[in-house]
Amino acid sequence: MKKIGIVCKAGRSEPLDIVRRLLPWLRERGTDVFLDAESAETIGIDGYPRERIPDLSEAIIVLGGDGTMLSVARLACKKSVPILGVNLGGLGFITEISQKEIFDALHMVLSGKCAAEDRLMLTARVTRTGKEIEEYTALNDVVINKGALARIVELDTSVNGVYVNGFRADGLIVSTPTGSTAYCLSAGGPILYPTMGSIILIPICPHTLSNRPIVLPDDIRLEIVLRTPIDDVFLTVDGQQGIPLRKDDVIAVEKSPYKTRLLIPPTSDFFEVLRTKLGWGVRSQNIRPC
Amino acid sequence: MKKIGIVCKAGRSEPLDIVRRLLPWLRERGTDVFLDAESAETIGIDGYPRERIPDLSEAIIVLGGDGTMLSVARLACKKSVPILGVNLGGLGFITEISQKEIFDALHMVLSGKCAAEDRLMLTARVTRTGKEIEEYTALNDVVINKGALARIVELDTSVNGVYVNGFRADGLIVSTPTGSTAYCLSAGGPILYPTMGSIILIPICPHTLSNRPIVLPDDIRLEIVLRTPIDDVFLTVDGQQGIPLRKDDVIAVEKSPYKTRLLIPPTSDFFEVLRTKLGWGVRSQNIRPC
Amino acid sequence: MKKIGIVCKAGRSEPLDIVRRLLPWLRERGTDVFLDAESAETIGIDGYPRERIPDLSEAIIVLGGDGTMLSVARLACKKSVPILGVNLGGLGFITEISQKEIFDALHMVLSGKCAAEDRLMLTARVTRTGKEIEEYTALNDVVINKGALARIVELDTSVNGVYVNGFRADGLIVSTPTGSTAYCLSAGGPILYPTMGSIILIPICPHTLSNRPIVLPDDIRLEIVLRTPIDDVFLTVDGQQGIPLRKDDVIAVEKSPYKTRLLIPPTSDFFEVLRTKLGWGVRSQNIRPC
Amino acid sequence: MKKIGIVCKAGRSEPLDIVRRLLPWLRERGTDVFLDAESAETIGIDGYPRERIPDLSEAIIVLGGDGTMLSVARLACKKSVPILGVNLGGLGFITEISQKEIFDALHMVLSGKCAAEDRLMLTARVTRTGKEIEEYTALNDVVINKGALARIVELDTSVNGVYVNGFRADGLIVSTPTGSTAYCLSAGGPILYPTMGSIILIPICPHTLSNRPIVLPDDIRLEIVLRTPIDDVFLTVDGQQGIPLRKDDVIAVEKSPYKTRLLIPPTSDFFEVLRTKLGWGVRSQNIRPC
Repeated sequence: MKKIGIVCKAGRSEPLDIVRRLLPWLRERGTDVFLDAESAETIGIDGYPRERIPDLSEAIIVLGGDGTMLSVARLACKKSVPILGVNLGGLGFITEISQKEIFDALHMVLSGKCAAEDRLMLTARVTRTGKEIEEYTALNDVVINKGALARIVELDTSVNGVYVNGFRADGLIVSTPTGSTAYCLSAGGPILYPTMGSIILIPICPHTLSNRPIVLPDDIRLEIVLRTPIDDVFLTVDGQQGIPLRKDDVIAVEKSPYKTRLLIPPTSDFFEVLRTKLGWGVRSQNIRPC
Repeated sequence: MKKIGIVCKAGRSEPLDIVRRLLPWLRERGTDVFLDAESAETIGIDGYPRERIPDLSEAIIVLGGDGTMLSVARLACKKSVPILGVNLGGLGFITEISQKEIFDALHMVLSGKCAAEDRLMLTARVTRTGKEIEEYTALNDVVINKGALARIVELDTSVNGVYVNGFRADGLIVSTPTGSTAYCLSAGGPILYPTMGSIILIPICPHTLSNRPIVLPDDIRLEIVLRTPIDDVFLTVDGQQGIPLRKDDVIAVEKSPYKTRLLIPPTSDFFEVLRTKLGWGVRSQNIRPC
Repeated sequence: MKKIGIVCKAGRSEPLDIVRRLLPWLRERGTDVFLDAESAETIGIDGYPRERIPDLSEAIIVLGGDGTMLSVARLACKKSVPILGVNLGGLGFITEISQKEIFDALHMVLSGKCAAEDRLMLTARVTRTGKEIEEYTALNDVVINKGALARIVELDTSVNGVYVNGFRADGLIVSTPTGSTAYCLSAGGPILYPTMGSIILIPICPHTLSNRPIVLPDDIRLEIVLRTPIDDVFLTVDGQQGIPLRKDDVIAVEKSPYKTRLLIPPTSDFFEVLRTKLGWGVRSQNIRPC
Repeated sequence: MKKIGIVCKAGRSEPLDIVRRLLPWLRERGTDVFLDAESAETIGIDGYPRERIPDLSEAIIVLGGDGTMLSVARLACKKSVPILGVNLGGLGFITEISQKEIFDALHMVLSGKCAAEDRLMLTARVTRTGKEIEEYTALNDVVINKGALARIVELDTSVNGVYVNGFRADGLIVSTPTGSTAYCLSAGGPILYPTMGSIILIPICPHTLSNRPIVLPDDIRLEIVLRTPIDDVFLTVDGQQGIPLRKDDVIAVEKSPYKTRLLIPPTSDFFEVLRTKLGWGVRSQNIRPC
């Protein structure tokens, strides 16, 4: 690989410090580098709009957290450009490597020895009075949520045209396996192995106590109709994009034709991330007397 | 008792039909009736502002659901006027009787034979830049909630000045035992017997999976400080009143000097309401094979 | 189809009443019937050992509940004989039809018009001091459970040789999607659409609060090692078969080469069963005030 | 205080090392020491049966974990002798101090400056065919549990003679606030502030998904009747004592006349223990992207 894009988390100095060390190292190896415009301006070189970087690059390095990864993933998926997340500080679920592993990992990427893993994404289409008004692609989740002052959201759901349930809740999460360790998990959802082909449906604070997370195959089409006549309901995608919804809006969610291609260094271990992020290994946290 | 207030759920015809039957029955028994202004106008008699009814009445009949009860409770508590909830349609947790029990129950109320039960209420005070800006009284709960598009609320909590935890979540519920069967329950909380002297603290969709509901004695003072620098966070009281919060606002919650006095007919059975509302008795809902 | 097996839940009279009506109806249609020996004896005809019925039949009718279905499924899977469950009384998750639908459904089965659905099963092998001592096939779940007086089970788990976690809990459930609506669900698990190719791993009452259900693809090999030096730990299969385990026993669980073939009449609706069994449709069970 | 009992966790060397350092220090201060017989034998001095130590001592030091504390608490409560738990290694919920705090804490105890806190205990009485056969006292919990091979326990429960529910589950926990951070918590229960006067009722893996923990005042009498005709059901007290139960056994649980008196050094901080044991403070364990 000879063309590497770099996108940094905005407004932070650590990623720029890394970029300053990466640039000469990459150029030495005959690589063209495409840095996002905002970062480029700060360090005084030519940059490129984030949106164009997937067109120019054979692989993209993301310096930031899971949040930055999500926004780059939604751009990169349409060109099938693989991305590698470098976490700054905290461990992430989709930022696979830490700062100190960066040169070893890049060495493997450039020589084509770093494996890539395809991750399921979702397409969400909003139809209002019979007309499609928006289309989104999500790597983590599509969420329908009430505002803080609204009392309830009522949502009718169906799968491939078969009625599932009328949820009464604070909201509803439709998640990919990758998203299962994000919002889903704090709403009481299960952890899905990230390469699975499954879609998770979870109500947020449901009024019916026996409502539970539902895991569906990824070849289904889920349709959600907003039944509540209030203004204060929103659709959000990966916690980053969103629009207000109206009564009778139809939100159709299904497998996206696009995938996120994650570069996976051999040190990557999903279960180790789980154990660390969720504190599983820590003996002192066992609660029962013995 | 010779002075009975009546408050109806607004915008519905069933409560007015009941009022039309109640009025002659009550007058026959020498009772003065104080009907809320909106209902009174519809049936063409003199009415009274809701706020004044507790001053005029020895007991108040509420025709509506749990929501109407909550709003009347917050008015009636300051005068210690007992209230009796008549549910229309569905069963309620604080509307003790159904329509067909109404005359039997009122007979007991008028003759002073209906027991009353005091329910814990909460006082919430919001302090901004050192100045108290609002004070609320709640029968169910005081909730701090993010809006639909915000990502997270960070809240530092302390009890009697001792640090408890920095919650990172969609929000935080502070609930009375009466409120334990409302929002609390859908956020994963326990059921508290309603006459207990306890305060429940529950994060909504917490980022830390080991966060759990905490039940505290009711002689504590809970202090919550909003740490998140976003505009989209709100305080709501009983799901009915609310204000937007700002970073560094301090919300102090403690036992209110007021109590809600509920009239409790002898047929009242908390556990029966639980079994019915939560579907406990229904055999076909048992899930495991046998 | 001309050869129909029938297996009845033992010790009950309803299934025998149904058999008495079924026998002439089936014979009229030129069908050979193979009834289980115990039932056959009660109604005075020739019967067959349960174990042999799958060898003799092209389809098996099970008159009983989900429990009877599980035991027949484990016999029928090795011959790929499809089975149809008729529930007596309560609704079941795998008994697809009620008594009154029986003749319509059988009509479709005999004419080959009833669809069949393959359900994932699990193989569990127990190895003790290097030697395989038992092998089981499960349609619902493989459970490792402590006895009532033991304090804790410690279980090391790995997937394809990669360490997952050392669980400290009352036990561990390894479940198929079909089993997700059984023990799994009462241990806090998600609902999986029953035809999925997934394996669920759930600790029972874990000591570490952040332990959550994990959903894995079905092409993995899960290995569980019992670390607790107590006598009071057991392996159970579908809640019906089991053996005591010892310290250092290795339990390997993976996809079985066998599938359960369920006959699925066109009236079958998984989501309707969910709504009914879990009480989702019942409005009065909504808990929050409005 | 001039008479100090010491009880060590059996079979471990660390507590004995501490005892060897404690003995001269205590004797120097004119204190009579009553060491448990097993430990005394190992270090070659005169010892006393555990059961007699509460009769001889004005305070008891427990060197061990929460388990050892529970067993001493059940002995000490009848004499109202206060106890101080020193945890070895891991942090405990009722072992208030670590090894290095031991001399400072004992200094306060001897001079009468260490506060004591009363903790609610439960009495459980088992009645079989009309005759009381056993009585137990519990500091943490009274648990009715099925064995590993049994399928279900059915338990009818009532409070002060009023029917609560017929639970179908793996078992039922009746817990004190002190026990809320033990078995209760892993069964999905709330955390209760330990000095509260409350009793918690929690089904273990209930078949009805809407079953939730119930918190009751401590002046009630709870009655549980075992309805399942199987042999494999047990009552356990604090996870340490137990008997097999039979169909129609009645288990009555209420507040014990005894309390556990815990010595509480000023450094004691319940919320700090919570944060540490449950990993609340650990930022890297936050799951959602930002």
